[in-house]
Amino acid sequence: MALEDPDYLVALERRYASQHRPGHIFWNGVIATQLAHRTVRSYRPDPLPEGTLETLIAAAQSAASSSNLNLWSAVAVTDRAARAKLAVLAGSQRHIEEAPLILLWVADLSRARRLGEREGAPTDGVDYLDSFLTASVDAALAAQNAVIAAESLGLGTVYIGALRNRPEDVAEVAGLPPGAAVIFGLVVGWPDEERPAAVKPRPPQSLVLHRERYSETPGAEADAIAGYDEASRDFQQSQGLPTTGWKAPVLARMAGGASLNGRDRLVAALKALGFPLR
Amino acid sequence: MALEDPDYLVALERRYASQHRPGHIFWNGVIATQLAHRTVRSYRPDPLPEGTLETLIAAAQSAASSSNLNLWSAVAVTDRAARAKLAVLAGSQRHIEEAPLILLWVADLSRARRLGEREGAPTDGVDYLDSFLTASVDAALAAQNAVIAAESLGLGTVYIGALRNRPEDVAEVAGLPPGAAVIFGLVVGWPDEERPAAVKPRPPQSLVLHRERYSETPGAEADAIAGYDEASRDFQQSQGLPTTGWKAPVLARMAGGASLNGRDRLVAALKALGFPLR
Repeated sequence: MALEDPDYLVALERRYASQHRPGHIFWNGVIATQLAHRTVRSYRPDPLPEGTLETLIAAAQSAASSSNLNLWSAVAVTDRAARAKLAVLAGSQRHIEEAPLILLWVADLSRARRLGEREGAPTDGVDYLDSFLTASVDAALAAQNAVIAAESLGLGTVYIGALRNRPEDVAEVAGLPPGAAVIFGLVVGWPDEERPAAVKPRPPQSLVLHRERYSETPGAEADAIAGYDEASRDFQQSQGLPTTGWKAPVLARMAGGASLNGRDRLVAALKALGFPLR
Repeated sequence: MALEDPDYLVALERRYASQHRPGHIFWNGVIATQLAHRTVRSYRPDPLPEGTLETLIAAAQSAASSSNLNLWSAVAVTDRAARAKLAVLAGSQRHIEEAPLILLWVADLSRARRLGEREGAPTDGVDYLDSFLTASVDAALAAQNAVIAAESLGLGTVYIGALRNRPEDVAEVAGLPPGAAVIFGLVVGWPDEERPAAVKPRPPQSLVLHRERYSETPGAEADAIAGYDEASRDFQQSQGLPTTGWKAPVLARMAGGASLNGRDRLVAALKALGFPLR
């Protein structure tokens, strides 16, 4: 790519690699920050400047909240011993120990429950799957705002979905009451520039974007996935990673309950944590 | 507030109103965009400029994806008749008809299932609640990136959770295959400046942010909620809205299955759409 290419073309080439990509997108500092996203798994140990956490939470709270119910909480864990425990619970993810902060994003129906108890009002609505889903989605919207705010400040992040491998143990570390569960973690810290992360290519837009109605043109989907498998392999090779492509790891993960690293028991775990999921 | 106050103080006063707020946050164009978020329910009918959709999807795809599984899809609906149907299904939300675009965000396990079928590989992992949750959370991360990108371009948005009141009917409008469900919609359009929206105050950070461990100091929580109830009432009055405060609508919504507008049957609806939720 020639050096005089506009920034947005460079960003699109990183995001879509050799695959089909939009010819033009709108461009500004916000969109540039978003397209530059990369997952950071190597951190310097330096602490975050005073005010960082408050900034990330103000951004998080500025995301939409379903009917303004505010059904999420965040637990900010900086304690070294607690981070070490969480790293183990997430399947030995060293970056949880390396970085100074992990935010635990909580689907929190316990606050509405406590409000009802204080006001003498029934809150049986929290027992339904939809309330759990509303809380989880709102936690995700909030967390993604925190991610973009963090990245705009030069910080790096990585989501930790693997905390759902051991929901009860994670809830114990976080000291959660019944009706609250950690949906995922978010590590925040200063990227170690000596072990830099790259922008990972995503599938072409045609694979995820449907116009007017969902289209399932089998050949087109298979072709797009074949191209993405190849783009993934090229990327992995350039990063010195095992060249597994995309199809093989997806199929390995989705093979069955045993390939879910414990998450096949999420229903039972959530019930134990006070979510009947009616 | 004096005119010479820095922008970040103005933004924090709007977001937290009379309640306790952080004394300082970091500030840049990205964070300013995020803190200025408001829900827009009044739109001009003007179409979106060419390239807008591609920009929003590039931003959405730049959000993290759990293990890079890419378990979401978006259906972009501009057709007037389809938008009218969706407006009815969401409980007569006129803005779905007013604005030129609604994006339907889909938890999409059908793509992994089809991949398995083509490759002759088992994909029983998609049948688990955790896979549905992973897909829903990833759809939310993607959508929130689209929201921030849209707002950076001067567009307005509103999430439509009420599409979950009628999941099967919405899936039919979107033409979804089994293993795919619309988790929420997102209306995108040009805000009607003659019917402007205001920044809604959120609870103080102390209500949602916990340090090291979840803290449940009953008096502190009740006080924070009482203050937020009052701030909500003040805001509603300033907007000419019914002054319900915050507690009453939360308790009305969470009272029980009957107050969930049909979402008490989400488990049955998702099973019918091909999610066993094991």
